Amino acid sequence: MIIVLKPQATEQDANVLLNQIEQCGLKPLYMPGVERIVLGALGDERVLQQCHFEANPLVEEVKPILTKYKRVSRDVQPHDSVVHIGNVPVGGQHFVVMAGPCSVESESQLLSVAERVKTHGARVLRGGAFKPRTSPYDFQGMGVEGLKLLKQASDLTGMPTVSEVMEISQVDAVCEYIDCLQIGARNMQNYGLLKAVGETGKPVLLKRGLSATIEECLLAAEYIVDAGNPNVILCERGIRTYETATRNTLDLNAVALMKQRSHLPVLVDPSHGTGVRELVTPLSRAAAAVGADGIIVESHLNPSEALSDGHQALTGDMFAQLMQELTPFVQAAGRKL
Amino acid sequence: MIIVLKPQATEQDANVLLNQIEQCGLKPLYMPGVERIVLGALGDERVLQQCHFEANPLVEEVKPILTKYKRVSRDVQPHDSVVHIGNVPVGGQHFVVMAGPCSVESESQLLSVAERVKTHGARVLRGGAFKPRTSPYDFQGMGVEGLKLLKQASDLTGMPTVSEVMEISQVDAVCEYIDCLQIGARNMQNYGLLKAVGETGKPVLLKRGLSATIEECLLAAEYIVDAGNPNVILCERGIRTYETATRNTLDLNAVALMKQRSHLPVLVDPSHGTGVRELVTPLSRAAAAVGADGIIVESHLNPSEALSDGHQALTGDMFAQLMQELTPFVQAAGRKL
Amino acid sequence: MIIVLKPQATEQDANVLLNQIEQCGLKPLYMPGVERIVLGALGDERVLQQCHFEANPLVEEVKPILTKYKRVSRDVQPHDSVVHIGNVPVGGQHFVVMAGPCSVESESQLLSVAERVKTHGARVLRGGAFKPRTSPYDFQGMGVEGLKLLKQASDLTGMPTVSEVMEISQVDAVCEYIDCLQIGARNMQNYGLLKAVGETGKPVLLKRGLSATIEECLLAAEYIVDAGNPNVILCERGIRTYETATRNTLDLNAVALMKQRSHLPVLVDPSHGTGVRELVTPLSRAAAAVGADGIIVESHLNPSEALSDGHQALTGDMFAQLMQELTPFVQAAGRKL
Amino acid sequence: MIIVLKPQATEQDANVLLNQIEQCGLKPLYMPGVERIVLGALGDERVLQQCHFEANPLVEEVKPILTKYKRVSRDVQPHDSVVHIGNVPVGGQHFVVMAGPCSVESESQLLSVAERVKTHGARVLRGGAFKPRTSPYDFQGMGVEGLKLLKQASDLTGMPTVSEVMEISQVDAVCEYIDCLQIGARNMQNYGLLKAVGETGKPVLLKRGLSATIEECLLAAEYIVDAGNPNVILCERGIRTYETATRNTLDLNAVALMKQRSHLPVLVDPSHGTGVRELVTPLSRAAAAVGADGIIVESHLNPSEALSDGHQALTGDMFAQLMQELTPFVQAAGRKL
Repeated sequence: MIIVLKPQATEQDANVLLNQIEQCGLKPLYMPGVERIVLGALGDERVLQQCHFEANPLVEEVKPILTKYKRVSRDVQPHDSVVHIGNVPVGGQHFVVMAGPCSVESESQLLSVAERVKTHGARVLRGGAFKPRTSPYDFQGMGVEGLKLLKQASDLTGMPTVSEVMEISQVDAVCEYIDCLQIGARNMQNYGLLKAVGETGKPVLLKRGLSATIEECLLAAEYIVDAGNPNVILCERGIRTYETATRNTLDLNAVALMKQRSHLPVLVDPSHGTGVRELVTPLSRAAAAVGADGIIVESHLNPSEALSDGHQALTGDMFAQLMQELTPFVQAAGRKL
Repeated sequence: MIIVLKPQATEQDANVLLNQIEQCGLKPLYMPGVERIVLGALGDERVLQQCHFEANPLVEEVKPILTKYKRVSRDVQPHDSVVHIGNVPVGGQHFVVMAGPCSVESESQLLSVAERVKTHGARVLRGGAFKPRTSPYDFQGMGVEGLKLLKQASDLTGMPTVSEVMEISQVDAVCEYIDCLQIGARNMQNYGLLKAVGETGKPVLLKRGLSATIEECLLAAEYIVDAGNPNVILCERGIRTYETATRNTLDLNAVALMKQRSHLPVLVDPSHGTGVRELVTPLSRAAAAVGADGIIVESHLNPSEALSDGHQALTGDMFAQLMQELTPFVQAAGRKL
Repeated sequence: MIIVLKPQATEQDANVLLNQIEQCGLKPLYMPGVERIVLGALGDERVLQQCHFEANPLVEEVKPILTKYKRVSRDVQPHDSVVHIGNVPVGGQHFVVMAGPCSVESESQLLSVAERVKTHGARVLRGGAFKPRTSPYDFQGMGVEGLKLLKQASDLTGMPTVSEVMEISQVDAVCEYIDCLQIGARNMQNYGLLKAVGETGKPVLLKRGLSATIEECLLAAEYIVDAGNPNVILCERGIRTYETATRNTLDLNAVALMKQRSHLPVLVDPSHGTGVRELVTPLSRAAAAVGADGIIVESHLNPSEALSDGHQALTGDMFAQLMQELTPFVQAAGRKL
Repeated sequence: MIIVLKPQATEQDANVLLNQIEQCGLKPLYMPGVERIVLGALGDERVLQQCHFEANPLVEEVKPILTKYKRVSRDVQPHDSVVHIGNVPVGGQHFVVMAGPCSVESESQLLSVAERVKTHGARVLRGGAFKPRTSPYDFQGMGVEGLKLLKQASDLTGMPTVSEVMEISQVDAVCEYIDCLQIGARNMQNYGLLKAVGETGKPVLLKRGLSATIEECLLAAEYIVDAGNPNVILCERGIRTYETATRNTLDLNAVALMKQRSHLPVLVDPSHGTGVRELVTPLSRAAAAVGADGIIVESHLNPSEALSDGHQALTGDMFAQLMQELTPFVQAAGRKL
C-alpha cells in the first residue's frame, strides 16, 4: 500500500502513520519526495483496511497495490472453474446457450419456447418468475406459479433451469424448483441476498450491475464464495452509458478482463446488453469470439404479446438463425455448442 | 403515445395496431409520413402499457407523452409536501440539517457526535447500523445494537433519527428504534424493500441510485407511495460518471428538476455526493441555493478512527464551520435553519 | 415530427404552431390528449429545423421521427460502400488489418515495424506524425518529417498509409504524403476540419469521439460527405464510461448498429478501445465476429521504448499471434484477410 | 512515482528499471511486497514521463504522485488570479455575469439583448459568430459579420465581449473585434488552437469538454499558459452522463475542486449545463454559492425565433428575474455583482 501525504504533512506526522503500519505487522517505508511525503507498507496490505488511512486529514490519497478480492482471483486458482447447472457444465469446452422467455407467462407459452430453443441447441432454460420492474404499474411476474412451470418444462425437456431470485424470502422457493439462481443487475450489491445464495450451494448466475465496475462485480462474487458457495457464474449484461441508441452498452472488454483476472466462468447477455432484437445475433457472435463461456438470450414465439421486454426477444426463427450463425464462431474459438 | 413504424410497415399493419388502440378505449390516429408511418393514441396512454407495442417487430419506436409516475407528480399535487420526522418538518420553511457518523461504532462515539452536531444546529441524527459494503471483508455495521444506541442518543438529545434499512427482515427492527427509514442508493430499485417500507407508514428517505435516472428515482418513490406511504423524502447523493477526482458527481440539476416535477421534499447528501471532506461545505451551500429542503452530512469527532467513509466525514470543528457558512445561503433562499 | 405542448398551452397556442407547420409545406395534425396537447407534422420534417419549435416556451418536447443524417444513411443507399485506400478496398469481402506504431519515431523504428506487420498480413500502415497529447509536456510527434518517413515506408513495402491530420493547415501536407486521412476522436466535431478533409476527396478514417453518440458520429460523417467526399470509413475506438480498469469501453454494439444504419465501412480500434495490450487480441476477434470491416492496431517492436501509448502496443510476436488467432474468426464471418 | 510490477517480474527485472530511475537523477526505491514488487522514484517525477515505464510489459501499473500540470496549479501560486476582460476583472471581489444570445443573428437582435442584459447587471456581452453545430444542415453562424456587430454593441453599451473561436484561421479576426476568446467544449483538446490563443495574450474563456476530466481541463489550460498567455478563465458547462432529463449534468463538484487545485478564475454556464430554461436560475444561484467567480448565460428577447439553442435562452423578463434572485446569494458569498 502506498500512502501519499498532503503538502503540509511533516516527518512527525509521517511517523505516526509509520508506527501504525509497523503495529499491523507490515514493513513501513518512508519516502520524502520533492512536493509530497510518500509512505509505503510492505506485506499483506489487506490487514491495513482496518487502519482507514484514507480518513486521516493529512492523507491525500491511498493507493492499494493488491486487489481486494482473493477467492475469485486467478492469482489464487490459475485454472478455469467449471460450474455445473444440473448436468450442464459451464466454463469448460462447451459454449453454453441459455434461452427462454423474459417472463414466464403461461404453461403453453413456456413449453412452446422451451421445446423450440432446445431443438436448436439451447442447453439451459431461462425464464423470470419474480420480475424487477421500474414502474409499480408493470407486470411483476407469476411468482411461485412461474417457478413450478419452469420445473415442469425442465422435466419435459431435460433442460436445467435458471431464474431470478430478488429477495431473501424467495431463496427457498427458487432453490426448490430451479437449478441455478440468478442475481439480477439491480441486486448485484444486495449483500444480504448475496450471502443468502452463498449459503445454498446452488449455482449462482451473478449479473453485473448497471453501473458496477469490474472490481465491484468480482467483489460481489467474492461475497458469495466467501459465504461458502464456489459455484458462481459471472454475467456481463451491458452497462449504462450516455449512449441512447442502444438500451445499454455491452462491455466485452469486461468479459476478456474478467476471464484474465478471475477463474470463474463468464457469460454474456446480449438481449439486455443491447436491448435491440436485431443486435442480438452479431453481439452473440462477438461474445463467442471474445472468450465468453456462453450466452443467455431471451426468446418468445410471439414477442408482440410478451408481457415484458418483447422488443429484445428473438422469435423462434430468429433464434434458429442465431444458433446457425453462432456455430462457426464457437468453433473458431475452439469450443463446442 | 406516439408509435413510429418501420419503413417496411404497410397501412394494413398499421390498422392492426390502430384497432388495438381503439379496443383499449383510446382514440387512434393514423399519420402516414414520407418515410415512416406514425400512429398516435389520444387518451390516458398508461393503459397502453399492457399492449407492449414496442415488442412488435414492425414498430421502430414508441414515444410516450406522459410520465409513468402519477402520485409523486406535481401535476397531481401542485403544493409542496411536508414530511415529519418525529417533530421535525422536512419540506417546509425550514432547511433541515441531518448529521451524524457514517457508522454507529460505540455509545461514546455516537453520543459525542450527536451532542456536537446538535449544538451547531443539526435537527435530525443520522447513523448507520446496517452497512452495505462493497467488500465482504469490510466492517458491516453493529446491527440492532447500533439501532439501540441511536434510540438512546435520540432520547438524550431530543433529535429524531434516520438510519438505513437494507433488507425486508430488518424493517421491523428499524421501525422500532428509528424515526425515518433510509433506503440506500444500492437499494433504490429493490422493489420488495420499497413495498415493505411503503407498508410501514414511517417517513422514508429514498436515496437516488448511483446510476438511476431522475425518472427512475421518481418511479421508485411511486412504489412506496403506491404501497400506501406518502411520507417520502427524495435524496440526491451523487451519480457515477467518468470523473474520478471526486467519488461521485453531485447532480444539482436533478434537485432543481425534481422540485419542479414532484411535490416531495428533496435533500442533498454532499458527503457521498463528493466523497471529499473539503468539498462538503461548498456543495452544502450550493444545495441550499439550488432549492433543496436540507442536507444530510457525515460527521465524526475523530475521522481517522472512523470504521467507514472517514475521508468524507467532517470533524466537529468543520461541522461548526459548515453551519456558520451555510446560514447566509439558507437565509438567501428565504428559509430558516 | 411530434410536438408535445406544456399543460398550460391552449388550443389557440396550438393553432399558431399548426400554422407554422402548414406554411413550411407540411401537413399539420392536432391531437388534444388528456393531459397535454400533441401536434404532428407530416412530410419531410427536416425543413422544420428552421422553425426551432423546441425554443417556444409553450413547447415541452419535440420528438423528431427521422434521423438528421441522410447521405450516410442506409435508407438512401442500401448496399455497402467500399472505400479504397490506395489499392486496398475497405468494406467489401476483405477484413482489413491496419497496423503500425502509435507515433512515427525514426526511420528504423518505422521500417522495422512496417515490414514485420506486412509479413503477418497487415494491408495498411498506420503511424502518427502529428500527435494530440493531453499534456503540453508530452512528445508531440515528428510532424512533416514523420509523414515523409511514412511515404518512404509505403514505397518500400507497398502498403498504403493512414495518418492523423489535426488541423486544417496540415491537410495539404498529409494529402501529399499519405493515402488516408485520419480524423482523431478529439476532432470528430471539429467542423472546419471535417469540411476541409471533405474537400480533398481522399479517403477519411473518422474516429468516433470519446463521448459522441452514434448519431453524432454519423452526423460528423455527413459533414464530410456533404462537403463532396463520399470516401468515409467510420471507426469505433472506445467510449468514456465510469469503468477505470480499461482505458476506454469498446462499444461493439455501436459497430453492429452503424452497419445497420449506414452504408459506410466500419473499423474497430482495439488498441485505444481497451488501452491494455493483453486485451487487443480477444477484442480483435470480437470485432471480426460482430461484423466490422477491419481493425486498426498499434504495434511497436520495442514497446518499452515507445514515445507514446507503448502500454497498448503489440510486440512483433504478439502481432503475429493476433493475426493467427484472428484468421478463423474472419473466415467464420465469411471474409478473407 | 510508484511503479507496480507484474507477479512474474524478478529482482533482476526491477534492477533495470531502478537504474533508469537513477539515470534520470531521481532516487530509486526497491519495495518487494508479498505478491508484487513495487518501485518508487523520489524527486521531480515529471522528468520520468520520457521513460514510459507504463509501456514495459513487466509493469502492471504506474501511479504518479504529482499532478501533470504546474503553471495553473495552486501549489505554484497560492493566491487567486484575476483576469481582466476589457475593464472587467474576473476572479476577484466581483461575481461577473456574462450574458447575450447564443448566436448573433442581426444588429437589432444583438443590440436589444445587449441593452437589456446590461440594464439588469450583466458586465460582459456574449454572442456566437462562429457556431459549432452537430448537423451540417443547422445554422452555422454569421462569421466575421457577427464579430463586427459584437464590436458595435460593445462600443454602444460599454460592455466588453466574449465570442468563440473555432479554428486557428479565425484567431486574428476574433482578436480584432472581441475582448475575450472563447474555446468551446468541443475544442478543449484542440491543441493547435490552444497554442494559437496562447500566443495572443488575450483573455481566454476555456470551456471544459463534454467528457473531459478535471485534470484534462487543467492540462488544457496549462497548454495556453505554457504558450505564454496567463489570462485563462475556466468554465464548467456540464458534462455528458447517462441522464437524459437534462441536456448535460452541471458538475459543481468540479467548480469547487478547480478553485482548490488551481488559482485560475472559474465560471459556470448554467444554460448549456442544464439545457433547460427553467433550471438556469436555480443553478445560477448554486454557482454563486459553490464559489464560482461568475456565470455566463444565454438570453434572447424572443427565444422562439432564436436560430440556435432557443430552448435554454432566457427572455428579458426571465433574465431580470435571474439577476434579482441571484443577488442575495452573491452577497451571501461575500461578493458584489
